[in-house]
Amino acid sequence: VTITEPQKDLDVATGAEGAIEIERELADQTRDYVERPERDLRRRPWQTYIDAELGMRGYWYPVARSKDLVDGSPQPVKVLGEEILLVRKGDKLYGVEDRCLHRGARFSARPLSLSEDTITCWYHTWTYDLEDGRIRCILNDPDSNLAGKPGIRAYAIEERRGLIFAYIGDGEPPALEGDLPPGLLDEDVTYHIAELRMIGANWRLALENSFDPGHHFIHNWSPLVIESGFPITFGYVAKKGEEHMMVDYHVEGPGPLGFTRTTKEGEYLFEATIPGKDGKPDTLYKAPGAVGRTNEELDALFQGMPPIRIGIWMPCVNSIENFPGTLTGYEWLVPVDENTTMCVTIGGKRCATPEESEAWKGEQGHIEWKVPVVDKFIVDDDFARVGVQKFYEDEDGWYRERMYRPDIEITMLRKFFANNARGIQTREKAVGSSRRRVSSETASENK
Amino acid sequence: VTITEPQKDLDVATGAEGAIEIERELADQTRDYVERPERDLRRRPWQTYIDAELGMRGYWYPVARSKDLVDGSPQPVKVLGEEILLVRKGDKLYGVEDRCLHRGARFSARPLSLSEDTITCWYHTWTYDLEDGRIRCILNDPDSNLAGKPGIRAYAIEERRGLIFAYIGDGEPPALEGDLPPGLLDEDVTYHIAELRMIGANWRLALENSFDPGHHFIHNWSPLVIESGFPITFGYVAKKGEEHMMVDYHVEGPGPLGFTRTTKEGEYLFEATIPGKDGKPDTLYKAPGAVGRTNEELDALFQGMPPIRIGIWMPCVNSIENFPGTLTGYEWLVPVDENTTMCVTIGGKRCATPEESEAWKGEQGHIEWKVPVVDKFIVDDDFARVGVQKFYEDEDGWYRERMYRPDIEITMLRKFFANNARGIQTREKAVGSSRRRVSSETASENK
Amino acid sequence: VTITEPQKDLDVATGAEGAIEIERELADQTRDYVERPERDLRRRPWQTYIDAELGMRGYWYPVARSKDLVDGSPQPVKVLGEEILLVRKGDKLYGVEDRCLHRGARFSARPLSLSEDTITCWYHTWTYDLEDGRIRCILNDPDSNLAGKPGIRAYAIEERRGLIFAYIGDGEPPALEGDLPPGLLDEDVTYHIAELRMIGANWRLALENSFDPGHHFIHNWSPLVIESGFPITFGYVAKKGEEHMMVDYHVEGPGPLGFTRTTKEGEYLFEATIPGKDGKPDTLYKAPGAVGRTNEELDALFQGMPPIRIGIWMPCVNSIENFPGTLTGYEWLVPVDENTTMCVTIGGKRCATPEESEAWKGEQGHIEWKVPVVDKFIVDDDFARVGVQKFYEDEDGWYRERMYRPDIEITMLRKFFANNARGIQTREKAVGSSRRRVSSETASENK
Repeated sequence: VTITEPQKDLDVATGAEGAIEIERELADQTRDYVERPERDLRRRPWQTYIDAELGMRGYWYPVARSKDLVDGSPQPVKVLGEEILLVRKGDKLYGVEDRCLHRGARFSARPLSLSEDTITCWYHTWTYDLEDGRIRCILNDPDSNLAGKPGIRAYAIEERRGLIFAYIGDGEPPALEGDLPPGLLDEDVTYHIAELRMIGANWRLALENSFDPGHHFIHNWSPLVIESGFPITFGYVAKKGEEHMMVDYHVEGPGPLGFTRTTKEGEYLFEATIPGKDGKPDTLYKAPGAVGRTNEELDALFQGMPPIRIGIWMPCVNSIENFPGTLTGYEWLVPVDENTTMCVTIGGKRCATPEESEAWKGEQGHIEWKVPVVDKFIVDDDFARVGVQKFYEDEDGWYRERMYRPDIEITMLRKFFANNARGIQTREKAVGSSRRRVSSETASENK
Repeated sequence: VTITEPQKDLDVATGAEGAIEIERELADQTRDYVERPERDLRRRPWQTYIDAELGMRGYWYPVARSKDLVDGSPQPVKVLGEEILLVRKGDKLYGVEDRCLHRGARFSARPLSLSEDTITCWYHTWTYDLEDGRIRCILNDPDSNLAGKPGIRAYAIEERRGLIFAYIGDGEPPALEGDLPPGLLDEDVTYHIAELRMIGANWRLALENSFDPGHHFIHNWSPLVIESGFPITFGYVAKKGEEHMMVDYHVEGPGPLGFTRTTKEGEYLFEATIPGKDGKPDTLYKAPGAVGRTNEELDALFQGMPPIRIGIWMPCVNSIENFPGTLTGYEWLVPVDENTTMCVTIGGKRCATPEESEAWKGEQGHIEWKVPVVDKFIVDDDFARVGVQKFYEDEDGWYRERMYRPDIEITMLRKFFANNARGIQTREKAVGSSRRRVSSETASENK
Repeated sequence: VTITEPQKDLDVATGAEGAIEIERELADQTRDYVERPERDLRRRPWQTYIDAELGMRGYWYPVARSKDLVDGSPQPVKVLGEEILLVRKGDKLYGVEDRCLHRGARFSARPLSLSEDTITCWYHTWTYDLEDGRIRCILNDPDSNLAGKPGIRAYAIEERRGLIFAYIGDGEPPALEGDLPPGLLDEDVTYHIAELRMIGANWRLALENSFDPGHHFIHNWSPLVIESGFPITFGYVAKKGEEHMMVDYHVEGPGPLGFTRTTKEGEYLFEATIPGKDGKPDTLYKAPGAVGRTNEELDALFQGMPPIRIGIWMPCVNSIENFPGTLTGYEWLVPVDENTTMCVTIGGKRCATPEESEAWKGEQGHIEWKVPVVDKFIVDDDFARVGVQKFYEDEDGWYRERMYRPDIEITMLRKFFANNARGIQTREKAVGSSRRRVSSETASENK
């Protein structure tokens, strides 16, 4: 499964009878919800997804850029509510819980790595093995019997394509490759990596926006679009009962779980009629970039472009192929806490020579991809993500939203994630288990 | 009932035996509370008023100045916890819930009114009728069966005297005129409207201050008073058992419910004796502006001034007549949320010609009324309002306050409001009803 | 008991068989906890201490510097969650609750003391006796029967050595001297008093740091230490089973309850070996200031210095003797609220003449003690105190911490405080008792 050879994948996925069956079933279940909201007063078919406020547990997540973690300068990050200290020592990478077992001090406040593979707490000299988190020794209590005992959490850390990944989960981690979106490791593609940015919205609102077939409208206000005068659709609508035909689900195989949609399958709209009331005339509204263009011209314009394919992959990454031009890109929406998402965005270009590749990593990628795409186009996605946060955070949005037909793809996404999640993250798992707290009354009874 | 002909109204109101009876009863009930606080441990005679933390439901409120709402530039406002988008289209005014039914986006983030009487959500093109809030159409789902269905709340909106009013309540709104304080619509009076300002206090603390017969003391520190050297009383005290004679209640008739107090009825104090303890001498303290003036001089000074009459009208406006000079004014204390009040202050002058009227609306009203009265005098009222907020917000003030005799007028106000309130606002009503939320446990039982 | 003649006190305290017994018992109890944490899942041996989140009730606390409270300028302070207005009138000092009984206004917002021994509320002229808090009179209700009635809390206030102390507790206060650390009143010692500073940590985390035998490590990063190149130990370890020999407890007698530790009794470490894993070599880490010095040199350096003795005294003050040089000092960690501690730090010098004394109070004390000790050394203590606050505030630290052997002195401190506390402060006691609040439903049942 790669995104660089889309047709083949599409064939494979839609070719399987089983996959189509799954897709139809998902669509049916969620269409039923969308069309008859009143019957769902007391539950949602994707309850697991709603409960995954802090993300899904048991996956690899990108947590930093390679270039931001240099030897001798450990960096703290927070993902899925977990505070992790990343440490690079020579050619080794480590990640440990950023919280001393002793009294909870954060190593990152004054990071001290005094030997090849240890981290020492700045407060009381407790020293931990960076690999397994065990207590190696305590400088000011050399004979302590705590040496060798379990200490802090240690994270599996891997580095690929300029990004550092951490496994957030329990037990032995699965292979990182299984959690990477298809095509990411293609050797002839070079990535320009944008600055990581924080979005003030829950990760699900951020992720859903990426795949949302009805969200295109917002890009009419993207600086890039305004400057270029390019037409942007209002969104597209699948034919009723054929929503599942738009999307290819990958529910089996060695690759990550996810699905894709190719833009050409849908119907794009550039104008709409707002009916007048009480005998007043209708209003025809045309997307700004479409004004002065006939439908034939618009159609020709889009037919002449390479097909754009958008993918969503567990745990939280979307891929985009052939946008802009022949570039490909990925955007991880990594949960930081309940109300914050870290966006990791990379733009890939197929490079023929090492020189071309170096140029793309630097100034060229910045000018040709980062500024126009991230700063001048994706900026509107963040606007939208943040724009619905209050409703979902404070106003019971997950139970109060009122969906419409294009949302079937959103609800299919939710149902898919709910069906396939390895686990969900909870605050208790994120912060660490604590001993049971009892009141002094109970305590005295237990003397 | 108008405030521009005070004596007549006073006559009418106090002349009615029924009204006097009501006033005596209110005074007796509240006096009992003030004098025997220990018996009221478990309840207050004005419980409805205490419960009206977000204001009273079922009334018209001023929400913006006419000049701040121009065609093509919708404005969001928040009153009684409700977020409203105000829209002016030609000679029509609209107000709708600032929250899309679909996924809760705020229209105001990027307001789009694409036809004469609709608002379109910037996220997914849901388009609503500005008049009744129904879904008119959805641009990217033209055949949606949601068209014509109920959508968002629509508010009744009216414009009077340079202010825009919204009805916050359920069902058919009553006539706006019934909720306007007497005299407001007098045609020969022109208003200068101050900038709307936010006060960091609950609306009841703001409103009570306006009518409080014991609050005068704070104005000894108003810049206007300090600059002018004018004497300010410590407050006044009604004779015991005659508190109800100070106030005229309007509990019937076409006008709004409320009451007035004329300053001359009370006894004003400009000096007081602080007794010494343990044989030490007493201290005579005289209000700063009264120093160097005899009681006769002070008396003559006040007798020579036009009588000031202060009114309180439901839902939350006070009127002041003959202050300063022959000006009249109104001050609405509009609940924004539990801890914030929007103050709408206007100063009225009787103008003989259109030129005089225009001048008053502009620079003249600014210089002669806004700066001295709002900026240099009312500033102390805001100081007082904010100064007790913490006690009522965090320290159980509504149940812990310890009242004294001049507070009988405050408690009468509370009792009056509690008796006459059409309804009270709750957070649930303000934010909107949500579907019942259940845990995933309950949900799975209901499969 | 004085800290200026340490050896004698040490003799007295450790000479008593009873005291040694108490110390051994405390050590045994807490050692047991440290070594077998699993058996303490449901309780802590120092539960009272854990419950004392806002401090201990029934003690004198320093609340301000004498020089910050001048006649005519009352000052608000907050200690143990209580808001107090301090007032100096001639040679008298007062402290009253900063909250009017009437409607909860803070006097400090506009402090008015209109007679020799009263405070008047700026809002409604309620006037209180500064000595006992009773209502003296109400300026605008001269005949009020509230005159003479109980009003607001009045605090016992005393002034010693440039500091103002308030008694936070119920009933008749004990003698202030009993709550002052030993030596504080020595007449030949003059104090330079640092600016009071707020620390963003709970008072217990702040206090424990001062006595913590394992905290020395942090001072390797103190600017003073870095500049001077002076060696700082990693902490010290008592011999197992002899932890109680390090500390002298004062549990009886006229002085305050507390205990001391003399540095020479412990073993100091300036280097430690971090074992290598999987056959890799060990790493020897030496404290920065110790590099280039032999153990003999380090030993000689420390043996040549006067012995440093550190004391902890209830309710929350530590003393330090012979640091730096022959200076002595005290540091109160006064609870402000649950997450904030006010640090009152003074540095004492034995002065032979009044001139010497005056110089020390001013520029000399600033240059020789305040800048190097408070600004360049204690700064690291605050770093450590704040560094563990999150764990204890948000992550259940009091029940989740995992202690090691040097912590036996911390746990002995906790147990000692828990055993001897006169009382603990609660939020309800701090803010004041309120009448019982009932819902309107309950209220109507009680009509």
